[in-house]
Amino acid sequence: MPENSLQRLRVILLGSGNVATNLGEALKEADAEIVQVYSRNKANAKVLAKKLKAKVLTDITKIDKRPALIIIAVKDDAIPALVKKMKVTEGIVVHTSGSVSMDVLKKFEQYGVFYPLQTFSKNRKKEFSIVPICIEGSDISTLHSLMNVAETLSDCVYNLDSKQRQAAHLAAVFANNFTNHIYAIAEDLLNEQKLPFDLIRPLIDETAVKVMELSPAEAQTGPAVRKDTKVMNAQIALLKKHPELKKLYNEMSAGIIKRSRKKK
Amino acid sequence: MPENSLQRLRVILLGSGNVATNLGEALKEADAEIVQVYSRNKANAKVLAKKLKAKVLTDITKIDKRPALIIIAVKDDAIPALVKKMKVTEGIVVHTSGSVSMDVLKKFEQYGVFYPLQTFSKNRKKEFSIVPICIEGSDISTLHSLMNVAETLSDCVYNLDSKQRQAAHLAAVFANNFTNHIYAIAEDLLNEQKLPFDLIRPLIDETAVKVMELSPAEAQTGPAVRKDTKVMNAQIALLKKHPELKKLYNEMSAGIIKRSRKKK
Repeated sequence: MPENSLQRLRVILLGSGNVATNLGEALKEADAEIVQVYSRNKANAKVLAKKLKAKVLTDITKIDKRPALIIIAVKDDAIPALVKKMKVTEGIVVHTSGSVSMDVLKKFEQYGVFYPLQTFSKNRKKEFSIVPICIEGSDISTLHSLMNVAETLSDCVYNLDSKQRQAAHLAAVFANNFTNHIYAIAEDLLNEQKLPFDLIRPLIDETAVKVMELSPAEAQTGPAVRKDTKVMNAQIALLKKHPELKKLYNEMSAGIIKRSRKKK
Repeated sequence: MPENSLQRLRVILLGSGNVATNLGEALKEADAEIVQVYSRNKANAKVLAKKLKAKVLTDITKIDKRPALIIIAVKDDAIPALVKKMKVTEGIVVHTSGSVSMDVLKKFEQYGVFYPLQTFSKNRKKEFSIVPICIEGSDISTLHSLMNVAETLSDCVYNLDSKQRQAAHLAAVFANNFTNHIYAIAEDLLNEQKLPFDLIRPLIDETAVKVMELSPAEAQTGPAVRKDTKVMNAQIALLKKHPELKKLYNEMSAGIIKRSRKKK
């Protein structure tokens, strides 16, 4: 059996969203057997089960009883209710959430967390080998099992405790959700002057590419880090109709100036 | 002469920073003749002049008098003083700034703006054909000349008036400077838990890649757009030692919620 094969692994997948789909496909490609796929949405479960050559599970109490890795990849707030309905089975039960405590699974014998720190879309397949996977296990043996699965899928596996995982998730909300919101604000500012978002797409790309090698501190440019108050004041004046953006502009600029002082 | 050649163009480059270097190299590659390179910093001017097979200009009053495209690519606040010292010459004088008005050049006969909307580094050569160039001209004939130069270098040329260019520059500050600052905040949050920035580099990359095709509104994910107050409250609690970040978290979340309502 090749090193990067999970041929002996039986997986039961609870969920049929973006994470379940991408993770299920990566496991399947690594030769794991996907036994069952469960979802509240039967149509979705069917589509994913077909893709993964798995059976559709419609009744959560009827999970296959033979030992398996059971992956709960549903929305955060749906986890507790789902866990409550699940019978205690052999094998390891994990969830894939960045923010939910591992303890939600403590009724099981072996449990843990398998959190892929990436943003997924169903129709954009991710190269899983570069997806960071954060794992946590209820005991050493569970941790080792999860480590083995994670390392087969990805070159970036991190063993994080719950506190670290929460910090990673918080950082991810800044780096993904808030960054995307900044893009949206920039789009609004362009549209006000009848300019297309295309105008700054290359800049957005380069901004991200730069920090693939540099640290954000090294990559920081612009009027704030130069303390160019003339440009900053002119830009704040442009935002006079947008008090919230004016406030945001001031706070971000103050943050950049403060951080650049610290670094010296 | 091939269509994408500037063989007959004589260029005088004032400045030796990131913009001057990248623009000079792109012009040289399109066969323009770089006649002189001027910089306050003589060593820098020498390095760039050598690269571009140009002469070093040390005295700004001694600009070559034959018709040329004179490109002022110095810091925004250094433009007025430099212009004051320049003698009125034949040809077109442009600056490369996103925020400075075109009028700063009105003592010349033909003038304009040649603003490449990208973040440059001296040692990271940019593919210029995908750099958006925003141009403005003092009259139709000047505009056409600049359009011709810009279209030879890039596939994305925009004719913007000063008001539009200011909006584009403001959007660029959000999309580049503020986004990079968000990356820095995320790095701080990781470092506090002894986690490396590498953990979220793939996420940062994917966040940018997603909006190359989707609009930011379509790409928005996370607790705020889901109105998942449980996760949001837990994350705000994590920021109790950072009142400024707590404030930022609340403002960004409120902005995301507000914007998602508007879109419906």
